[in-house]
Amino acid sequence: MKIDLQTAAARLREMDDILLLTHRNPDGDAAGSLWALYRLLTKLGKRVKFQLVGKVPENLLFAAECEAEDFEEKFIVAVDLAEATLLGEALQPVYGEKIDLNIDHHGSNTFFAKETFLDAKAAAAAQLVYSLYEEMNVPIDVRSAEQLYIGLSTDTGCFRYGNTNSEALHTAAELVGIGIDNGDINRRIFETKSKAYIQFEALAMSNLRMHFDGKCAVMALTKDMFTRTGLDESETHMIAGLPRQVEGVLVGATIKEKDNGLCRVSLRSNEPVDVSAIAKTFGGGGHKLAAGCDLYGTVSKATADLLKEIEAALHSYNLL
Amino acid sequence: MKIDLQTAAARLREMDDILLLTHRNPDGDAAGSLWALYRLLTKLGKRVKFQLVGKVPENLLFAAECEAEDFEEKFIVAVDLAEATLLGEALQPVYGEKIDLNIDHHGSNTFFAKETFLDAKAAAAAQLVYSLYEEMNVPIDVRSAEQLYIGLSTDTGCFRYGNTNSEALHTAAELVGIGIDNGDINRRIFETKSKAYIQFEALAMSNLRMHFDGKCAVMALTKDMFTRTGLDESETHMIAGLPRQVEGVLVGATIKEKDNGLCRVSLRSNEPVDVSAIAKTFGGGGHKLAAGCDLYGTVSKATADLLKEIEAALHSYNLL
Repeated sequence: MKIDLQTAAARLREMDDILLLTHRNPDGDAAGSLWALYRLLTKLGKRVKFQLVGKVPENLLFAAECEAEDFEEKFIVAVDLAEATLLGEALQPVYGEKIDLNIDHHGSNTFFAKETFLDAKAAAAAQLVYSLYEEMNVPIDVRSAEQLYIGLSTDTGCFRYGNTNSEALHTAAELVGIGIDNGDINRRIFETKSKAYIQFEALAMSNLRMHFDGKCAVMALTKDMFTRTGLDESETHMIAGLPRQVEGVLVGATIKEKDNGLCRVSLRSNEPVDVSAIAKTFGGGGHKLAAGCDLYGTVSKATADLLKEIEAALHSYNLL
Repeated sequence: MKIDLQTAAARLREMDDILLLTHRNPDGDAAGSLWALYRLLTKLGKRVKFQLVGKVPENLLFAAECEAEDFEEKFIVAVDLAEATLLGEALQPVYGEKIDLNIDHHGSNTFFAKETFLDAKAAAAAQLVYSLYEEMNVPIDVRSAEQLYIGLSTDTGCFRYGNTNSEALHTAAELVGIGIDNGDINRRIFETKSKAYIQFEALAMSNLRMHFDGKCAVMALTKDMFTRTGLDESETHMIAGLPRQVEGVLVGATIKEKDNGLCRVSLRSNEPVDVSAIAKTFGGGGHKLAAGCDLYGTVSKATADLLKEIEAALHSYNLL
């Protein structure tokens, strides 16, 4: 059931002994929102713990919360979780059907939780957690502000993407006003590239292939490239945006070769193309201009399968 | 003489037949602020014209104002102009000492104008022009909002740099609230790279050299690289930020080879290094974390000269 901000705040007030969850391989919005929610609930005197599945990007750890003592949870709250499968293989069977409240901003949310506080217009889950701080009258200290800012800036590409609405910028202004060092945080998240990353990016750029009259750019990220550069996979989130940056490109894709014949695809588009629809045909999802899905097979088979759908999408918009 | 917002607004109200100027090779803040000021004064019923020296980056032209009819100016107003020499060789002798009002945000401003409305804490000159709209009660239409947003986003690196204060984000929130398509503008300015640019960047990255224990990164941009890729010089503003992005780098520099033995240097730093001091030793200037200067001689001589000053600066901070 979909609930509003006031009801979500009331539910949180009633809860205690809470387990917080988010999607596997947490990005800045998942981790930042979860940490800020942990802090909010802790400040309200509640016993809270959380589980993060997969590695949190190292450049976010400066704002991490320490995991608290263990206890048996009475309530489970998720944040930034579009569907239960994204909990990951280990947690989905255990918690997938037990989530009491989900706080999310994905239009593709499947309403798998008992109650969902969803605002698909919000630029980030962090925006919703921020609104909970306001609604529940909990002061935002510098650490909470950093966590919320991490979420907001990550999901908006540091206020670049089209989802950066007036509310997101207004919230960012408030968070910066609280005294966070946003220049420093931005450099950590968006401007610092390891030498391995720089080598990896150069290899990736040499793998960039144009299709359909330059309207589509695809970049293969092979296991060999990770081995050669030593790049950690958690450092590749910025790569996904590169193909779309080429002038004239409407759909940009990266295809990351994983183990066991799995290819993880990130899709980015420029208006008017809705890549979440393309991702959905492969069982994935996301937002209009940024989505993802998994394909099985070799990189070249995955590329061929993907290009067929991209071509169909471009045709459907009369762009080919 | 330094004047405040209210006085600057009063002066503008008194003026008519105004010529607007800004620095040569206008970037987004110079052009955006000038256009928005042109629009502000035009809306107040004044006769206004402007001169832009050098090419405005093509991706900003969607928000350009058309140059108006010619007339003999009675007043000269400059915006985003730190010193008179930046008018360029052609305009400085004519207008350098005749500027009635300068609206600027550079801490290095030399107060060459008769009156200067300076706020060195403002993230962009566009922030000051925005405050003039507010002070003078002139409604900001979508086109003006686009122009102000161009200025604000350009000078803050789309809200990434350390100069992005709460006021800048608040103003951006207001401008986005007026109805501009900020996602589209950001893609035009920050996310769209021509094929020539992509080739140029790859060449530039291969020219990246590390110095002083990885604390300094220098990138040479030679005339040959421009010839080979066909990149227009006005497209290189994003390149200047690359050397600083390497993990551990405190001072990043690009050295652009120009005609007649001139090298144009862009400096970027991370805290605590003040690169405007380094630029000043070569007769240049700018901000603490972003500055520039001209050096004469071959690229390798300019590099050697520059490295000496960077080494001295790193020593002065006890960083070597």
